[in-house]
Amino acid sequence: MRGPLALALVGVRHATRTRLRAASSAALEWASPEHRRKHASRKWGRFDENLIPLWVADGDALAPLPVREAVAAASKAGIYGYVDPSASLLQAVTAGMGRSWGRPVSTDWVRWHPGLIPALYHCARLAGPKGCVVVPTPVYPPFLNAAKDASQCIELDLGNEGGPLDESLLRETLDKAVATADGEDVVLLWCNPHNPTGRVWRRHEMEAVARECASRNVILASDEVWSGLILDDVPFTPAGLLDTDVRLISITSASKTYNVAGLDVAFAVVEDDVLRRRYFRAGRDQAEPSHAGLEALGAILDADGGGPCVLTPPRGACEAWRRAMVDHLRANRDTAVAFLERECGDLLTVAAPAESTYLLWLDARKLGASPGLFLSQRGVYLTDGAAFGARGFVRLNFCCSRAVLDEGLERIKGACVEARSNL
Amino acid sequence: MRGPLALALVGVRHATRTRLRAASSAALEWASPEHRRKHASRKWGRFDENLIPLWVADGDALAPLPVREAVAAASKAGIYGYVDPSASLLQAVTAGMGRSWGRPVSTDWVRWHPGLIPALYHCARLAGPKGCVVVPTPVYPPFLNAAKDASQCIELDLGNEGGPLDESLLRETLDKAVATADGEDVVLLWCNPHNPTGRVWRRHEMEAVARECASRNVILASDEVWSGLILDDVPFTPAGLLDTDVRLISITSASKTYNVAGLDVAFAVVEDDVLRRRYFRAGRDQAEPSHAGLEALGAILDADGGGPCVLTPPRGACEAWRRAMVDHLRANRDTAVAFLERECGDLLTVAAPAESTYLLWLDARKLGASPGLFLSQRGVYLTDGAAFGARGFVRLNFCCSRAVLDEGLERIKGACVEARSNL
Repeated sequence: MRGPLALALVGVRHATRTRLRAASSAALEWASPEHRRKHASRKWGRFDENLIPLWVADGDALAPLPVREAVAAASKAGIYGYVDPSASLLQAVTAGMGRSWGRPVSTDWVRWHPGLIPALYHCARLAGPKGCVVVPTPVYPPFLNAAKDASQCIELDLGNEGGPLDESLLRETLDKAVATADGEDVVLLWCNPHNPTGRVWRRHEMEAVARECASRNVILASDEVWSGLILDDVPFTPAGLLDTDVRLISITSASKTYNVAGLDVAFAVVEDDVLRRRYFRAGRDQAEPSHAGLEALGAILDADGGGPCVLTPPRGACEAWRRAMVDHLRANRDTAVAFLERECGDLLTVAAPAESTYLLWLDARKLGASPGLFLSQRGVYLTDGAAFGARGFVRLNFCCSRAVLDEGLERIKGACVEARSNL
Repeated sequence: MRGPLALALVGVRHATRTRLRAASSAALEWASPEHRRKHASRKWGRFDENLIPLWVADGDALAPLPVREAVAAASKAGIYGYVDPSASLLQAVTAGMGRSWGRPVSTDWVRWHPGLIPALYHCARLAGPKGCVVVPTPVYPPFLNAAKDASQCIELDLGNEGGPLDESLLRETLDKAVATADGEDVVLLWCNPHNPTGRVWRRHEMEAVARECASRNVILASDEVWSGLILDDVPFTPAGLLDTDVRLISITSASKTYNVAGLDVAFAVVEDDVLRRRYFRAGRDQAEPSHAGLEALGAILDADGGGPCVLTPPRGACEAWRRAMVDHLRANRDTAVAFLERECGDLLTVAAPAESTYLLWLDARKLGASPGLFLSQRGVYLTDGAAFGARGFVRLNFCCSRAVLDEGLERIKGACVEARSNL
């Protein structure tokens, strides 16, 4: 079956590097598969060239022009020694955070990381081997890895539907974690918006999370890396906005919103003095964001501050690009949902509405226990749900050109045709 | 005293960006202080503009031209998603390692890191909270941090002279560590060449280290990040070259040799299958070297492999630059040693011969308990030895233009004049 699909891909290859609005800073530019593979792309390079990769959470768009200009200028300077964030960058970060939170944020509260996942590990290490980390599932694998590598892990079942929070289950799970930790710390790793379901947690849900953590002295680690990519009209509630005395660690990065995951920069903000000192000491090993990453962040933020989330400054140089990306992703999501319901609905169900992110969470249990493998053998690579704590599900990344998406969807349809013939 | 020195610095500023041999790929180009500060340099940016910074281990030279070209080309492409090392890079790394070790090295043995320090933490975490990490002191601070953050720490006193290894003290210390670990793992964090003394461990010393570790089942973690900057005629012995069954983790990076610490790339090589699996699981948090870092490494290595160390490929595109750097550093070292002995010998002693690295380890106890602070208040910033486990010592970084070095030395001389007048 590879023949015709490979031929179809040739068409995709030529179509994918289209400048939509080349003269505007809002222009989305989609890298061709060749272009991506040439630059050591994990997403495109890890598998057979004939495979359409709709898996790991990076997008196929070139970064926004101001980011590229900043990174290129810094690279050209030829100075690649140890870097500290500049005073102006730190100021922009805290101003943006303060605007989002509705109160002043001190530059002292910021801890830089070379990526979001090292921050998750820092959080998990606060619980330590005898404490407990609560992980809401299904969830992207580093949550479970961090909890299991550093501590004892207890899962909080969110369901696969991206629906409302079950507060009574939350309370029950936190109680169980507190009992397991037996006096040691408990950390709740939270993800808002949630990966993979796309749930944007409502304000009353975030208040419940903070309240239940606070009343048990549980540390709340809030991963807000997707907050710049909300596709529907649902307001984002940063944990820092809440009126609460919970011990809070807020973590974010430009990696998803502006497609710069390879630039190695993220940061955590910890207001509580005692917690922050512990957090800083949880491992002094990952203090170095990359030089290019800091430049990129500087190009994204503006001096006055953030919108609903720190990384969506209304007057930011990359804000038009971000809005264009959100529009593109919404259209891609709607296309994918309609196609899959129409062509594959008997075998593959769109489990959650993806009101944010560029990830579609699919119930593929009718394709067997390893639907990711089944689909990959038929020319399209989605992330298998097993590592998310949800066997039989798959996650589809739709941050790609419409042409690549269409080709990927056709291959999923083809896989379903084959599955039906085997039934 | 700031007046005349600040004026002198103006002269330095104009002199420091001199192309020595502009047309050659071996040309060393020294960044001006303004140039360094503009690019978020930790070394130059953290302190007062009037301070001469001879501290943190990065150099003031621009990276080699092939590195800059590779990084600039990758940056310009505008693709900053997740990266995997390319097959050809992996091949070059293992070919180089194999050449240095005198035997084949499998690509499966390589674990990438975004820097050397995360690798040290991985090693320390193998011992865990109940095990023990042996740290030879004096040593650069991340060794002690990693051991203390992740495990129980026992110091092995190397002395401050950069002299031969005391094998009987090694045995005694390892025995103590094994007893402390009480059945859990013991890890020896080794540094070859050693930072801060510059000791290049002789082959018989490396054999003793491996033998004593092997006989006690101690894991040997060999940090070889300085192996490309050996200034005297002393052969480098990579731990992987030894005929031993010690459980070995070899770690290195281009960060020091090619002045690319901010590009976030390092790697560990672990041959033992069981140990490697444990090492890979010690934390799946730091898997991402930066996109620019991988490009840089690709520009440094050649396909056929390494010289005495993996990062000194004889036909490598940056090898002429590296040799020019070694020559420059040797001259700077000799200048600094002669100056300090002549002008400051009564108060400041060159403790170790610095046969490698660009670090001069100085006994400054006659300047008080915090000589780093004393000197910084007099216009020159050296790293205080307290965090190395050696109070009263300071470390001088001489990877700078001759003009900056001369100015720094003058300020040290001035500080000594002042100290004498206070005696």
